[in-house]
This record gives sequence, C-alpha cells and structure tokens, in this order.
Amino acid sequence: MKTEIINTGTELLLGQTLNTHLQHIALRLADIGVCVQRQVTVPDGLAIREAMNESLARAELVLVTGGLGPTSDDVTRDMAANLLGRKKVFHGSVLEKIRERFLRRGLVMPEQVAVQAWAPEGAEILPNDCGTAPGLYLIGREGQHIFLLPGPPSELNPMFEQSVMPLLRSILPEPPPEPLFFRLVGVGESLLQEKIEPFIRSFSPDAEIGYCARPGEVDLRVPVCGDDARGQIQKKVESLFGDALYATGHESMEEVVVRLATKLGKTVAVAESCTGGLIANRITNVPGSSAVFLGGAVVYANSEKVRQLGVPIEMIEKHGAVSGEVAEAMAHGIAERTGADVAASSTGVAGPGSGTAEKPAGLCWLGFCSAIEKKSLRKHLATERESFKYMASQQVLDGLRRTLLMLGAAK
Amino acid sequence: MKTEIINTGTELLLGQTLNTHLQHIALRLADIGVCVQRQVTVPDGLAIREAMNESLARAELVLVTGGLGPTSDDVTRDMAANLLGRKKVFHGSVLEKIRERFLRRGLVMPEQVAVQAWAPEGAEILPNDCGTAPGLYLIGREGQHIFLLPGPPSELNPMFEQSVMPLLRSILPEPPPEPLFFRLVGVGESLLQEKIEPFIRSFSPDAEIGYCARPGEVDLRVPVCGDDARGQIQKKVESLFGDALYATGHESMEEVVVRLATKLGKTVAVAESCTGGLIANRITNVPGSSAVFLGGAVVYANSEKVRQLGVPIEMIEKHGAVSGEVAEAMAHGIAERTGADVAASSTGVAGPGSGTAEKPAGLCWLGFCSAIEKKSLRKHLATERESFKYMASQQVLDGLRRTLLMLGAAK
Repeated sequence: MKTEIINTGTELLLGQTLNTHLQHIALRLADIGVCVQRQVTVPDGLAIREAMNESLARAELVLVTGGLGPTSDDVTRDMAANLLGRKKVFHGSVLEKIRERFLRRGLVMPEQVAVQAWAPEGAEILPNDCGTAPGLYLIGREGQHIFLLPGPPSELNPMFEQSVMPLLRSILPEPPPEPLFFRLVGVGESLLQEKIEPFIRSFSPDAEIGYCARPGEVDLRVPVCGDDARGQIQKKVESLFGDALYATGHESMEEVVVRLATKLGKTVAVAESCTGGLIANRITNVPGSSAVFLGGAVVYANSEKVRQLGVPIEMIEKHGAVSGEVAEAMAHGIAERTGADVAASSTGVAGPGSGTAEKPAGLCWLGFCSAIEKKSLRKHLATERESFKYMASQQVLDGLRRTLLMLGAAK
Repeated sequence: MKTEIINTGTELLLGQTLNTHLQHIALRLADIGVCVQRQVTVPDGLAIREAMNESLARAELVLVTGGLGPTSDDVTRDMAANLLGRKKVFHGSVLEKIRERFLRRGLVMPEQVAVQAWAPEGAEILPNDCGTAPGLYLIGREGQHIFLLPGPPSELNPMFEQSVMPLLRSILPEPPPEPLFFRLVGVGESLLQEKIEPFIRSFSPDAEIGYCARPGEVDLRVPVCGDDARGQIQKKVESLFGDALYATGHESMEEVVVRLATKLGKTVAVAESCTGGLIANRITNVPGSSAVFLGGAVVYANSEKVRQLGVPIEMIEKHGAVSGEVAEAMAHGIAERTGADVAASSTGVAGPGSGTAEKPAGLCWLGFCSAIEKKSLRKHLATERESFKYMASQQVLDGLRRTLLMLGAAK
C-alpha cells in the first residue's frame, strides 16, 4: 500500500522542534508490512492543502500530523474539508469530552477550544486520551485512507496504538516477510558491502540491500525471501563478523545489554564522568531494566570521583582524571560499592573549550570491571559535544555487552 | 530565499534512523534569516531525481542530504549529474585524501570507495574531515544554489559549519530581524493565545503568530518588526506570565538552569530514580556545566537509595519508594553528601507493566533541597516510558530553575 506522511508545523521547519513522527510511525507501519514512500514537512497554512493534494494523487494511505490544535494557525481540519469538498459538522460528544478534561484539572475551557469539536462530514472520530484534539479518519474521493492526527507526540503516539493500528490492520492484506536486519559495531560500511554483497547477490541479484552508517556502527538490511536463502545469509554474516554483529533485528545496544544481563542474572552499574548520565539514561529507557540495573554515579567533579567511587586523589593528581588508571578505578569503585556483577565507567574531554595538546577534546577512557577482567580502553571520538557523549556511551554499552558475552561463555 | 531540504535514505523512511537533519539545518539557517519552506524524505534510488526536480522548480536553495556513500544504494551524485545534464569528472585529490584517511587508521581502502572521488562537472568540492564522501556545491540551470551533503550527522554537521554556512553568508542579502520567541512552562496553548493574541494583533494584525505545544510547555513565536512593538509585547508577556516564562529566546530548560547557577555561583546535584540519569544527561549536554554541576546518583534499586543517599530503609518500607518522604530524603541526601547548594530528586513509576491502583504508572514525586526550602511535589505525567522520563526531567529542571530564581532574589 503506497503510503505518504505529511507533517505540518512551522516549528518543525524552523528547527525548534525535532520531528520524531516519521520514525515513530514508520517503525509501527513496518511491523504490519507497510513502507513509507515519502514524507514531507510543510508549514502551518495553505501549504497543507497543496501537500495533501499531491500525496492523494500518489498514495493510497496518507497520514497527516499537526494543525489540529485550537489556535489560529491550526488549519488541517479546514484544509481537508475543503480539499475533499465536504462541509464540517459539529460533534457535541467531542466538546463534552474536552470540557470534562478541563474540569478535571479545575480549569475553565477557553472558548476557542470548541473548534476542535468540528470535523469534515463522514469523518470517523479517533479519541484523544492525552489531549483535546481528536484524530480523524476519512476516505478520499478515490478510496484513499486519510488519517488526520495531532502533532504532539504525547498525544499522537497513544492514539496511533489505540485507533490507527487497529484500523490499518483491518484494511491491510497479508504483509510480506520482514527483511533480514543486522546491526554491526566497529565495521565500516564499505568493508561490510565488500564482504557480504556478492554472497547476497548469489541468492537475489536485484535485492535492494540497504546500508546505514551511524557513529561507530552500521546497519545492514536484506529484503530476501525464502527460508533457505535467509538462513544461509544469516549464517554468513555471523561467521564473517562474529562479535561485531551485536543485533539481528532492531534491538538497540542498550536493549541487548539488558537482555543479556537478564538472561544471565547479572547486575549492572555504571560510573559516568564525560557521558554525564547518558549511559544510565539509555539503559533505563529499556522496560524491565530495573531488574538488572542497580544504578550509577554521575561524577563530574573530581571530588565526587573520590567521594562516590573511592578513586584515590593521588591517582587523579598523578595521571589526570582522564586516564586509564582513573577509568579502571571508577569501574572498580562502582562495582565494589553497588555489588554489581558488571560495571563500567567513562572519563573524557567532551569539549568544546576544554582539552589540551596532550588530552584533546574527544579523548575518552572507558573502564570495565567484572569477575573476568578489569581493564581500560582509550578512544578518540567525535569532538562535537553531544556526538561525543553518544559515541562514548555506545562504546561503554558495547564493552558491557562483550563482558556479558564472556561471562555467558564462561558459565 | 525560498529553501527546501531533501533527505534521502531508506533507513529514514523505515524509521530505523531518526532524521535530525531538518532540525539541525533549519536552526542554523534561521540564524542567517533563511526559512525552510518544505522538507521531504525520499528513499535511496530514482525518487531522489524526482524530488530534486520538484524542489528546483520551486526553490532557490536546495539542500540534499545522503546518498553520497560508497555503496550501491548511494546514487545522489549520479542523479544530480543526470538532472543537470553534466558529465562526472574525477578528482584525484579527493581520492588521495580518502586513501590517507584509511591509511591513518591502518586500513586498506576498499576499491569501491573510489566512486566518492567523482563529481558532476563544475561542482565545488566541500571537504569532509569526519568521513570519506566530500560534499558538493552546484549552481542549477536557473541559478539555484544546490548543496549535496553526506547523510551521517557526524559528517554533515561539521561540514555545514565549515563549508556551507560561509558559502551561504556570501550569497545572502541582509537578514530580517529575528522573531520574538518565548518559552513558557505550565501554561496551556489556548490560554496563552486567549491572553496574548489580541495584544499582539493591536500592533500587527496579520502577524503569523506561532504556537507550539510540547509536553508540559508551550513556545510562542511573534514575527513583529519595530523596536516599540517588540518592547511592549515582551513586557506584556513578562507581566502576564511571570515565572512561567522560562526563556526569552531559544534557551532550553537545562541551559537556563546552568546559566542561573553559573551567575549565582551555586552548585547543583541530582538524585535520580525514575528519570534514570536523564536529568544529569541533559545538564551535562550544556557546555560549561562542569563548573556548576557536581554530579548525581542514579539510584534505581532501593538498596542504592539507602547506600548512596542515606534514605532510611524504614521510610521506604513505610511510605514506599515512590513517595514525597523518599523524594525529599533523596534530595536532602545528595545535597548533604555532595555539598551542592541546590539539589533535586525524582522517584516514580515509569511503566509499562509496573504500577498499582494506588501508585499507577505515570505517578512521580519530585524532591528539592536548598538553603531556602526542602519540599516535594507530586505529579501525574504521561504513561509512555520515554515521555514520562522526559516530562519528569523537565519538571525537576523547572523546580531547580525556580529554586535558583528564589536564591537570586534573596541575595
């Protein structure tokens, strides 16, 4: 089913808000075999009508986000009614629900919120449990499926699960098998292609193989049918890349770490300097992480490295806070204090503005501590602050993963 | 200057990679007075040519990201050459630079990487210091400015600063004044419009006022010229909304917290349970935060709340870990142990799967501790795990901001 997404919102085009809709919606659609062919972002206003008109000419399923709010720049309802040649009708039950929502919070409903109770004739109302504007489902002149959905992710995402997915499942035919998907760490995109593509082409000369390089890692997507081909390609990737293959499927590095720790019954803790809480944050994004993640220390100040982790102040003075010695002592300190089976640490120069010739921005030491080994690794990563933190967190999570694999093998 | 952005990459349309290009590029363009009119994401392949053709018909500046890699699905260079009717020429110096890059890492350059040294005739080469594929700058048939840029943000973002921004500055006329911009917390979008819009319209009846609701907060954008009007609108927003106005301009909540703490010379620490490191991560994303942020404790397990923060186990047993008593004790514990002037804590039920009737998923207690006051706040937030963590972190940062404002006023 040809599918397009239209995101409206001047704040998206001004860069004030990160557009997370495409990713969220596309991942859910992929689960039911629907690929998005095109996504477009347009400003609030007339451009919404033009974009809808273009998409309806090409696609059978069109999802529009944003522009359903109560303010003067929210025009999606009007544009859709106009484009489809429908008048708008008033839904008393929607207004009641909105009014109740304000009442529950002890607020009086501002009058202009009432515009959200109007909808193009024939639209199915999709309830919004997390905000005021309901979503709308319409059938186009040529049978296209049209969804108008609220812009805030906190409203759109639950509505997508509760209303859009069930409607789509009822519309769709059987989905094709999902492409094979591999995530590798520490392997370059070119080397990956050079090693694996001829093998894949021997099964499927025209497969649209996808490579996606991200900082320090690469994804490989292979849309191939047939159990034999799939099995052989899977085995080949495994034998070629070994431990560098960290996920078969869409698992993130933090999900792999939590899954391995859970399976082995091992607990995890982290001591973070330069990553500043990002590793703990990524681990605790994984549902169920509380069963294996004991906690962590964010030790930005040297005094905190001493107090929270017992790193000797003489060691910091001699080697500097960004050193293999301190990274190891941090990992050891958090392991000992929390009693975690596997522990890791980060200490580095995130920049900008800090850093010296000897210890430039981008330098990072990672420490690891477990029953199997205590070690530190030196890395030179990106120098842009947030990329640096992300890449350092990814390296630490990969180290935790490798430690857990070793512990699993030693059992 | 009419501007469009084309992002290519099947992984973006499959949702496997979050598209951060629009936000990054749009923010930088806004700084030089350029607004993006439209952004489109298309898959790798022929669709790139179609999208470029459409954009070149509408826009004077077209930025294309992605599809410059070495693999078989990277076709942007070919599509651009074909569309503009140019042959491709080989750049020996580019190939040398790529080869050296591999050599420095002790690797042999895979042969297919050489395709990255070819470019449409007349293209200006934009060096890539963080990857292999150079960017390309071309002039279209009708004088349009065309940039072909690499897809990975770690390559695109530095190239944008080093090459694209200087080129654009040399092309552009004088930019108009930036719109007024306000960020408010705890104020609804409708109420904001009801209170402020008539006042703004009295100066500029047709101003394209923008409202953007995000979890627990709202942005207001007012594109008005004239120093008098701007000054009066600024004053009106301040008097109407007081402390709820947390930023004039694009500062984030964490940037405000770091700025206030720096100005007052106060240190900050956090103790996180349900936010799992996100607050510390957001604070440490701010350059210069190391001067005021001492560190934090991520205390997921109850045993860690006791060990790291001295929360009495009897208190946890009596009131539960998610309670005002424990939130306050956590904030007090981290303040006392780190010696921070201002401290805060989070403890809540992130879900999914946990939670009870009495303490449902989404329940959160925040604790605060400073010389001025020790208190806790109860909030019921979103129930989706990552939204919950974000909203809880925002509430804690807002509490830290308000505490710092009080400390500043008490001086």
